[in-house]
Parts: sequence; C-alpha cells; structure tokens
Amino acid sequence: MTNKIQILGIAGSLRANSFNRSLLKNAQERMPADAALEIYSLDDLPVYNQDLEQALPLSVERLKAAIARSDAILFATPEYNYSIPGVLKNAIDWASRPGGASAWAGKPAAIIGATAGTLGTARAQYHLRQILVALDMPTVNQPEVMIAGSRDKFDPSGHLHDEKSIQILDALLKKFISLAHAHAR
Amino acid sequence: MTNKIQILGIAGSLRANSFNRSLLKNAQERMPADAALEIYSLDDLPVYNQDLEQALPLSVERLKAAIARSDAILFATPEYNYSIPGVLKNAIDWASRPGGASAWAGKPAAIIGATAGTLGTARAQYHLRQILVALDMPTVNQPEVMIAGSRDKFDPSGHLHDEKSIQILDALLKKFISLAHAHAR
Amino acid sequence: MTNKIQILGIAGSLRANSFNRSLLKNAQERMPADAALEIYSLDDLPVYNQDLEQALPLSVERLKAAIARSDAILFATPEYNYSIPGVLKNAIDWASRPGGASAWAGKPAAIIGATAGTLGTARAQYHLRQILVALDMPTVNQPEVMIAGSRDKFDPSGHLHDEKSIQILDALLKKFISLAHAHAR
Amino acid sequence: MTNKIQILGIAGSLRANSFNRSLLKNAQERMPADAALEIYSLDDLPVYNQDLEQALPLSVERLKAAIARSDAILFATPEYNYSIPGVLKNAIDWASRPGGASAWAGKPAAIIGATAGTLGTARAQYHLRQILVALDMPTVNQPEVMIAGSRDKFDPSGHLHDEKSIQILDALLKKFISLAHAHAR
Repeated sequence: MTNKIQILGIAGSLRANSFNRSLLKNAQERMPADAALEIYSLDDLPVYNQDLEQALPLSVERLKAAIARSDAILFATPEYNYSIPGVLKNAIDWASRPGGASAWAGKPAAIIGATAGTLGTARAQYHLRQILVALDMPTVNQPEVMIAGSRDKFDPSGHLHDEKSIQILDALLKKFISLAHAHAR
Repeated sequence: MTNKIQILGIAGSLRANSFNRSLLKNAQERMPADAALEIYSLDDLPVYNQDLEQALPLSVERLKAAIARSDAILFATPEYNYSIPGVLKNAIDWASRPGGASAWAGKPAAIIGATAGTLGTARAQYHLRQILVALDMPTVNQPEVMIAGSRDKFDPSGHLHDEKSIQILDALLKKFISLAHAHAR
Repeated sequence: MTNKIQILGIAGSLRANSFNRSLLKNAQERMPADAALEIYSLDDLPVYNQDLEQALPLSVERLKAAIARSDAILFATPEYNYSIPGVLKNAIDWASRPGGASAWAGKPAAIIGATAGTLGTARAQYHLRQILVALDMPTVNQPEVMIAGSRDKFDPSGHLHDEKSIQILDALLKKFISLAHAHAR
Repeated sequence: MTNKIQILGIAGSLRANSFNRSLLKNAQERMPADAALEIYSLDDLPVYNQDLEQALPLSVERLKAAIARSDAILFATPEYNYSIPGVLKNAIDWASRPGGASAWAGKPAAIIGATAGTLGTARAQYHLRQILVALDMPTVNQPEVMIAGSRDKFDPSGHLHDEKSIQILDALLKKFISLAHAHAR
C-alpha cells in the first residue's frame, strides 16, 4: 500500500528501561495495518546553542531529516519536575531551528506518557501541548494516554498488560492515524 | 556585613550575546548593598540520563554545589517554542536529582526574561513557575520582569537603558531580597 | 450556497463597549463568502450549579441549541486575572453538561482576543486552549490573534483599524473556515 | 490568643453535597489551635459585568469584606473541563475589582481539591496557581492536596476517612498557617 502513514516516535527519556520507550514499542506493535512507527532515539544530540546554528550538528540534521520524511509525530513523554524533560525540549528546540526552517511545522502529532506516579505525566503533556501550538502541529485531543502506576502495568520486559490502558492506547492510535490521513490528503 | 544575601543567577541561553545573559549582568550591577549576585553558566552540562545518576557528572556536582551555597536563585529565561529552553530545563532536571537530594528545595526564587518579540517570555515564565512548584521554591509573584522588544531596550554592549524596564527590575530585586531575607531568618 | 459554514461567535465579556465584542463584529464583517458568523450574548446565564442539571435553565438550553446548530465556534476572550473570565468559563461549564451530553464535542474552534494591556490576552488564550482539549474541540494553532494596546487599534465605534491586526485576523479566519470545512465533510 | 490566624475557606462548587465543600469542613475540624477557618459560600454572586462596577452588588461587597477581615485564603476547587469552575473564577474576578482595589492582594493562599476522577483536580489547581500570581497572593507550594477517587475516601456524611489524604491535608495546613504567620508579622 503506497500511502501507509509513516509515524516517527520520540521518547523523552534516554534511560534504557524507560517506561516511555517501552510504551512506544507497545504502540509500534499495536499499530494498525495502514501505519508504521519508526522509533527515534535522542541520545546523540548536544545541548542547544544558537551560536552553533550556522552549521547544524550532524545529529540535528539527522533528526530533522527523520521528521521531514515522516507524516506524523508520536511523542512519548515522561514528566520531570511537572514538565517535559529538558532532553525532549532540547530536541524540539534544535529541530525548530533555524528560524523559518522548523522541521515540525504542520506535522500532525499525538502525545502519550507513562509514569510510576499518580498523575500519568498530565502536567508534562499540557506543557507539551502548548509547545505544539508554537510548532503549529495539529494534535489529537481525546483520548489522552496518561498511564499512572506503570510498575503494575508493564511487565519486566516492557510489555503493557493493563487492559484499560491498552484500549485507550488503541483508541488514540486510531484517532491519530485518521488525523494524519486527513492531513496527508 | 555577614548576612549579605548570596544569589545565584542562571541564564537559560548559552548564546554569547544573549539578552538574558545581559539582563543578569544588569541585575548584578543594580543589586542592592545587602545582596550579591553570582552568574553561573550552564555551558558544560551533558544531556540528562537517569542511568548516569549513580555517579553524577562533575559539571552537575559543580552546579549543585553552587546552588547549595546560595541563599536564593534568579532565573533569566528566554522563550523557545512557548516554553523555557531545553538547556534550562535540563539543568533543572540534573540538579533536582537523585530523588530526595534536590539542590533546589526551599530556595527562594525570582524569574526575569527578555526577548526580541512581543510577549516578553511570558509563556516561558509561567511554565517555569509551575516547575518551581515541583521544586518547592517560594517565588516572587509581582512585579514580573518581561522585557519585550529587547533590541530597542539594550545597547550593543548589553546595557539595559529602558527606564521603565529598569524600574520594574529594581522593584523585583527589592521584593526578591526581602523574600530571601525572610527565608534566611 | 448550501454548505456555508455557520460559525457561532461568543465573547467572554458582558460589557457593552467590550473590545472583544467589537472584535467579533469586525470578524463578522470580514467573514469570507463561504461562512457566516452569528454573535451570541451570554447575558442571561445563571451561575452554574450541578443541582440544577435535572432541569436545565431555559437560557442554557438556548445556548446549547445555538452551539448544536453551528458548524464551528469562535471565542473572543478578554483576560481577567491571567485567565479567561468567569463569565466565559461559566458558559462553557453549562453547555458541557450534563455528563455525556456536551454541546461542544467535536466542534472546530478558534480563539481571538483583545486587551488594552501588553500581552494581548495570551494567558487567557492558553488556559482556554487547555479547556478545549477537555471539550474535544479541534482548534486552530496559528496564527494567533492577540491584540494588545487595543485603545489605539479600535476607533470609538469599535472598528478595528490597525492594519497588521486586520491581516492576522483575516489569516486566522481563513485557516478556521478551512478547518471547519474539513470537519463538515 | 489574640493573634489566631483567621482563614477564609472558599469552595468552587455550589452543589450541596460537593466533595470540596466537605473537604473544607474536614479542614475546619482539623485546624490547629492557632488558626480558625470560616467557610464562605458563593451562592449569591451575580455574573460579573464591568458595567456594574460603579456600584458593586451587595453580595460582592460582602465577599470583599470577608476577604479583608481574613489573614489568609484556602481555596477548595473542583475541576470542570480541565480548569477551575466558572463559579470560582467569577468570584475571583468580582473581588479583584475595581482596578487598584482588589481584596486579594497580598493574602497568603493555599489550594486543596477533591474529585471522583483520577487526577485529583491537578489541572484546575495549576490554572488557579497562575491566577494567584496575578492576584499577588503568596501560595503554599508543597504538599499538594489532590484527592482522586473521592467516592472511596469520603463517607456519605462527607467525612474524609482516607488516612493518606488526611496526613497530606494536615501537612498542608501546617505549612499554610506558618506562611500566614510569617505574613502577619
């Protein structure tokens, strides 16, 4: 099928056993037939400095190219200190530059998040939503995938086995792919 | 005077000619006699990774020590994509770790920001305020230093010459030092 | 033309000479040929009380019917105390009830705002955006109509004469109608 | 004792059996000996209209007088549509007027909230925190009282019987009274 939706999945944590990296893998496995998810790792990005923009670092060029070849972006964000991780914001800042050449503009987006705590990354997700307004990315509103108490919902290999969470994730992916199709027309 | 308030000033931009680095220098020069401002540069921090927490990088230890020896923190934040820079959030994340050993807890804080644009970093400042709730840092409410149109308000050497902005900055510093004194008692 | 987009315009202020009521009238006059704007006044709504939900007040039924017959909603919000007015939130709360029978769900939305102050209702608009996530209303991201210094941009009869503001308003309306068409398909 | 802290408690819901009204009553019963809580009901406030400011309604004068005679304000807020209720924002707007004569300025504040849902009014509380910056009210940061799943934590008479929630409420009240004492000096 030629018009399969290509989604880029970005996790906001670099930790090897991160719930959010696992959540992306679960999303990858559960992706409907008309879409595919590529998981991108932010490991190699330097800290942003505008003075380096004249010649973007290769790792930034690689990120921008991955975004450019994708139809839509799936963000899986942890919550650090009531907001998104600096790691994720740093990647967003880099790929939005230089001015007028943002890689993000117009790409449909969805947000998911998992945490050991009780609020399911809600605070991080609302900050990210405001950032996506700046980036001009149409974003799925409902349902929201905010997985709290993740220690009881993922098994040690990172498989999500909580039935209710799986249903919400599936519902989000369906809405997301529909949004991406509408924009790809 | 022995109980001079020691303030740590942190700018969210690494750019050499950043308005916010300049703004910190102006605050340093205008600091009342009962307080002193040390400007800290975030240049050397790596990107946060929880897997590195067992042995914190030296640059992180250095930041945490600088916070620990200060009575209060002055954040000068640019606004990138409607929020604080990843660079600043990354520093906040590092110094808040490991769990239970945050360097920030209880330190009084104030926020200032300058931008070439029209909103004066307002969106970044409200995100930062929510983050400071997580960090449990009492923060000055009013006045708010949000300098818009900075190209017309700083001279080429970084000196702030806009009279109204200077008055608001001075008023904030006065409130901030009073808050820091109250907490140092 | 049978499929003209019907937009309901709601101002968050009850004041007779409100900039936001005037802004809606300007939007009405500038509406492209394939859309029409009906301006709705919130004057008659009581304060929300869940105990009254068994029999909704007639003024609430009237508001819900106006939303139901519209294809899309244009909010014109002042900013009171860094958020949307209680008056506007009260109307949103009423029309979202009872549970499962929200009148707002799925209606495309756009936000505009005008103020005498410097931030152009930005803080109110980001709060409203989060509320529209709850209501599941797809919302135009860019451009954002945030008119600061309104005393110099509207004439005494309420006509918006600031050229740059008019251009941004026109650009928003175009994007909004396009979004509404996409959802009406 | 002459300098007992007088706290005004305001619930954001008018519903007779509201969890947040009940939460205020629990706070009243658990108040330490050096503080007293008066619970204020917002039932009689009209919808805000700036055109009515020349002669404030009696119900608004009554609210402003109650705030003025209190040392500190305890807000108990439900969450409606991811923000504070219009009812509560309407009361905040009224008592902040007319310009320059806000009743709120400088009063220490704390926020509590209870909901049947999973996020414990978190989204409403962060919106309210931003509003309190506008009102210039120093606000307790930690701990945060966000009671989720309230149906299992309050008994039918409104008594809070969840041990962990009670401990957090008590810890908040202690911090709050300490903040109020510091400001009353």
